[in-house]
Amino acid sequence: MAVATQSLEELCINSIRFLAIDAVEKAKSGHPGLPMGAAPMAFVIWDRFMRYNPKNPKWFNRDRFILSAGHGSMLQYALLYLAGYDSVTIEDIKQFRQWESKTPGHPENFMTAGVEVTTGPLGQGIANAVGLAIAEAHLAAKFNKPDAKIVDHYTYVILGDGCNMEGVSGEASSFAGHQGLGKLIALYDDNHISIDGSTDVAFTEDVSKRFEAYGWHVLHVKEGNTDLDAIAKAIEEAKSVTDKPSMIKVTTTIGYGSPNKANTAGVHGAALGTDEVKLTRSNLGWEYEPFVVPQDAVNHMRKAVERGAGYEAEWNKAFDAYKAKYPQEAAEFERYISGKLPDGWDQVLPTYTAEDKALPTRKHSETCLNKLAAVLPELIGGSADLTHSNLTEIKGKGEFQKGQYQNPNIHFGVREHGMGAICNGIALHGSGLIPYGATFLIFTDYMRAAIRLSALSQAGSIWVMTHDSIGQGEDGPTHQPIETLASLRAIPKLTVIRPADGNEASGAYKVAIERAKQNAPTLLAFTRQNVPNLAGTSIEGVTKGGYTVVDSEGTPELIIIGTGSELNLAVTAAEKLTAEGKKVRVVSLPAWDLFEAQDAAYRESVLPKAVTKRLAVEAGTSFGWHKYVGTEGDTVTIDRFGASAPGGVCLEKFGFSVDNVLAKAKALLG
Amino acid sequence: MAVATQSLEELCINSIRFLAIDAVEKAKSGHPGLPMGAAPMAFVIWDRFMRYNPKNPKWFNRDRFILSAGHGSMLQYALLYLAGYDSVTIEDIKQFRQWESKTPGHPENFMTAGVEVTTGPLGQGIANAVGLAIAEAHLAAKFNKPDAKIVDHYTYVILGDGCNMEGVSGEASSFAGHQGLGKLIALYDDNHISIDGSTDVAFTEDVSKRFEAYGWHVLHVKEGNTDLDAIAKAIEEAKSVTDKPSMIKVTTTIGYGSPNKANTAGVHGAALGTDEVKLTRSNLGWEYEPFVVPQDAVNHMRKAVERGAGYEAEWNKAFDAYKAKYPQEAAEFERYISGKLPDGWDQVLPTYTAEDKALPTRKHSETCLNKLAAVLPELIGGSADLTHSNLTEIKGKGEFQKGQYQNPNIHFGVREHGMGAICNGIALHGSGLIPYGATFLIFTDYMRAAIRLSALSQAGSIWVMTHDSIGQGEDGPTHQPIETLASLRAIPKLTVIRPADGNEASGAYKVAIERAKQNAPTLLAFTRQNVPNLAGTSIEGVTKGGYTVVDSEGTPELIIIGTGSELNLAVTAAEKLTAEGKKVRVVSLPAWDLFEAQDAAYRESVLPKAVTKRLAVEAGTSFGWHKYVGTEGDTVTIDRFGASAPGGVCLEKFGFSVDNVLAKAKALLG
Repeated sequence: MAVATQSLEELCINSIRFLAIDAVEKAKSGHPGLPMGAAPMAFVIWDRFMRYNPKNPKWFNRDRFILSAGHGSMLQYALLYLAGYDSVTIEDIKQFRQWESKTPGHPENFMTAGVEVTTGPLGQGIANAVGLAIAEAHLAAKFNKPDAKIVDHYTYVILGDGCNMEGVSGEASSFAGHQGLGKLIALYDDNHISIDGSTDVAFTEDVSKRFEAYGWHVLHVKEGNTDLDAIAKAIEEAKSVTDKPSMIKVTTTIGYGSPNKANTAGVHGAALGTDEVKLTRSNLGWEYEPFVVPQDAVNHMRKAVERGAGYEAEWNKAFDAYKAKYPQEAAEFERYISGKLPDGWDQVLPTYTAEDKALPTRKHSETCLNKLAAVLPELIGGSADLTHSNLTEIKGKGEFQKGQYQNPNIHFGVREHGMGAICNGIALHGSGLIPYGATFLIFTDYMRAAIRLSALSQAGSIWVMTHDSIGQGEDGPTHQPIETLASLRAIPKLTVIRPADGNEASGAYKVAIERAKQNAPTLLAFTRQNVPNLAGTSIEGVTKGGYTVVDSEGTPELIIIGTGSELNLAVTAAEKLTAEGKKVRVVSLPAWDLFEAQDAAYRESVLPKAVTKRLAVEAGTSFGWHKYVGTEGDTVTIDRFGASAPGGVCLEKFGFSVDNVLAKAKALLG
Repeated sequence: MAVATQSLEELCINSIRFLAIDAVEKAKSGHPGLPMGAAPMAFVIWDRFMRYNPKNPKWFNRDRFILSAGHGSMLQYALLYLAGYDSVTIEDIKQFRQWESKTPGHPENFMTAGVEVTTGPLGQGIANAVGLAIAEAHLAAKFNKPDAKIVDHYTYVILGDGCNMEGVSGEASSFAGHQGLGKLIALYDDNHISIDGSTDVAFTEDVSKRFEAYGWHVLHVKEGNTDLDAIAKAIEEAKSVTDKPSMIKVTTTIGYGSPNKANTAGVHGAALGTDEVKLTRSNLGWEYEPFVVPQDAVNHMRKAVERGAGYEAEWNKAFDAYKAKYPQEAAEFERYISGKLPDGWDQVLPTYTAEDKALPTRKHSETCLNKLAAVLPELIGGSADLTHSNLTEIKGKGEFQKGQYQNPNIHFGVREHGMGAICNGIALHGSGLIPYGATFLIFTDYMRAAIRLSALSQAGSIWVMTHDSIGQGEDGPTHQPIETLASLRAIPKLTVIRPADGNEASGAYKVAIERAKQNAPTLLAFTRQNVPNLAGTSIEGVTKGGYTVVDSEGTPELIIIGTGSELNLAVTAAEKLTAEGKKVRVVSLPAWDLFEAQDAAYRESVLPKAVTKRLAVEAGTSFGWHKYVGTEGDTVTIDRFGASAPGGVCLEKFGFSVDNVLAKAKALLG
């Protein structure tokens, strides 16, 4: 297949292919995902369709491009370089997969401008893309006017067999079909090879038929290695169908152009090797040295810079007109994309006294969400089919559904993982929207990969988790979190807050909203059952992560640390001990990482090193608590699975009673 | 719809319905999942088709029944009671969802004989069922002879809309279609209602078409509330198709029979209430008092006892004949179902000296697996598309595929969550098979719900996880576990083992295999990169969870605790410190929970309370380590996300070097 002369487009595509080959060869690391088959479709998207501005990667109205098959990251870096982004130079490409390079092993939005989301864990990218498309649809429905479309872009995705095997992609795709997200266009790189070899060993379903079943518009390009016009035609057709997302199956050859490794898993899991690279160069008629790209290709693709400036100028003009005509909406829109909160927004958060009625903290969460929604219309989200258990409905605002995308209440269905990745996509749209997703705390297990990615990829999602302990009750151990809080607290950059009452629920939302605007996620854990409002709790206390709720006169002999529904046990026990003449402090520790972020003096003031008699009370595992109770302290915790019984019975039986706290406290006091 | 006279079958079905109504009403707890629409299909399965023996719930060749829609647990308890199981009495039903009852909120196999797996977390049951069907197909291919079918049963599942929305069910169903598991028959209770209301709000895909796309045989019963013959006919048809699993969509009415709540979400999320129960009784012509079942219905359903005894006697006879003709196979089969290990099985586990070649522990894992497979043919499993990275192939044994079910190597595809639930199903088949599932350690996040359920439901699965730290390298932070070990160690009843070298890898497998036979899961964490073999490591040490690898002369001044690939840093640092005259002990702590299970004297002998200068070294989060290093100790750990770079560079940059261990050790020594 020696190619004597190459068209300009072929030259560009081969530039992508050989940049990837050369970078992978230099890095000599496994699983490089050479984009030999995917380069043509990516090129067609970027060169013939996509509107973006390389010199302003965050230009609001850009089309979004997601490489869901993130192991092919060099495809994206080559595109960024060729299209004229400043974020990726040829030197960066030579540093592929090296320490602190702009070209890490998988696309990371926080490392490389022009990368929208972080992919690599399979299936996340396509699910993020559903979130991006939802953000676009929502903002368009909210801000566009019959005479002014200021929000109007497509979301393009390339995904592979691996993505399509993952359940999360199924969940999100089913949801996208339900919502009829017409501006979501996914190109499925159908190359029949995954790491274990031919997909025949594990994946023989009819993917196209499955997407049809989801309600997608499905197309097929039979010769994806070379037939650029067929790819372009399919994308045109996809754009013409506006009430369904489109899935274009593009049949390609993995390792296309490699005489001996094309169409094998070898090219998926390892670099080609010097000899095969030579043969591939010869086979594709590529006479350029490693990392050398023909100037014609660069010149052609860099036209994106001029085009991009034009798109942006045009949009700016349109927005100016919009602003003149619709100043109020324009101001709101500008606030959205500025990432700023309106002045005084947090004044709506309620506070409580000990006289206020005992309520479940999930009920306080509902109050906060609804009060906040009135001043923060950028809140958008919902539950994975537990709306009336999680209490996450924004009342009077309607459902986000096909034809009514302006509404904020999303019914995600029983799709926790998809919900997580979709929320991350909404956050990473970068338009100021604050997504939230809700389920029972235990089912964070279903969406943990998405929660982790929210923390890693700086997505300001809010995870609203209710039924946060064995107090959940009758549903039994499958539904009762034990180790869940610990397992979430261990995730870097994820703030986990377990509020004790109404004030702390308000504090939790204050933190979560502020963090969301700083592109950081927060997970909130609320009770199913009633808890009393406590005298010493405060919003400010929560923002510090930990604080003294009840203090002793003089240096305490004992510190009881509580969180959530158990803080009131700590307070009651302390009252009894104080009445007996003991010096007992109660510390509320709703957010460990926020407490750790305080200065040493503050931490010492709350938990003085000298006071080693410490008792932690939390209806969850003891795992992790030794950091605070030390070797001389103790815990009232539960290190076994729960049981099906009324919540109060479970709590009592497992030792979450004032009596048991008192007994353990007295044992410590000696 | 007053029913004047009821057929015997209607009487049985209404008995199921009202037992559930009465139990739910008495328990007065939320989310009871009244089986008004599902009772007919369940009755048809149990009464007309299923072979089981109520008086011997574990009879090997029984058909398996899985209620994947586990919130309808009362359906299962009613069936067990009516069919004559000793595990559920009418008193037990009156104790529905109460402390220590046999009738918990969701079906729990460890609480109630006759329940095969633990369901409730949606989608798990159907995926477990795929595992049960795999176990049956595998054992049948292995043991059956042309003249003797000793393994021959169906796996029936009832699943709902919730199950079908979950990604895990999609993964497992796609895999079941690929494998052509003809004896798997799933009945989809298509009632259009989930907790949030009509499925129209979130779930409008064509489920039947999706299952066709997966390669299933798909049927539809349009009147599932009453048309028992149509249900039976569909099951007959399902049985007649032997090369595909069958999915029978059975359209029903949720809350069938309730005049005001049928076909509403109200009946999904709460009890009917006294008045509506009365109306429902009247509507369905049910004149019996609460918890009273007409004797005719009991008599009819209890025929299952006699039938069951017959099935078992027949099977015993067939097995006797088999035993006479195929004594060797019969002996092996009997060993399988006895749950016993062959004598001396662990002698195949290799041991190493410090002179042996440095290798990745994943390579040691491969050696163990292959050596064990030679003596334990009950090992069956594989990887989620990372076979040659996880190194989990049993060489020379062939792939488990349609038409070659006797082989042990399963290609799960990129379906971690499905893999997890399928492995649990294989384990819970209760036939002595030891399933294992493999992926990168980080992707336990995708399958965490299944891992947790292995621990809760006493499934002896082995989780083989490789690439267990930032030593993973170039793939970057999306692929590098940080908090993962901690998050897994926090799960009750899950033993997590991170071996340091060849000896410890052998120890890890010794523990994992023994635990598997005791119906307990084990998670193994192996390195991608080379680690040296150390002088003091041993199989026995691993079985104790923690042990001294290098000791000082006399009481140590400092204890360095290491796991996995970092143990050798601890050993080298200790050598240097010893050379400088310090008294330093090195403790290997590969399995925390096993160490905690040792007696106090042993634990004190390894980690004496008096030695408070302690340094833990592990390429993972510090979260949880304070239990061992206390307030005066320190850790060499990583509390941030990793980075894309060669593994050695990552380890060095993040402080996993002898120099850094030395520096921290010296700081502690003062």
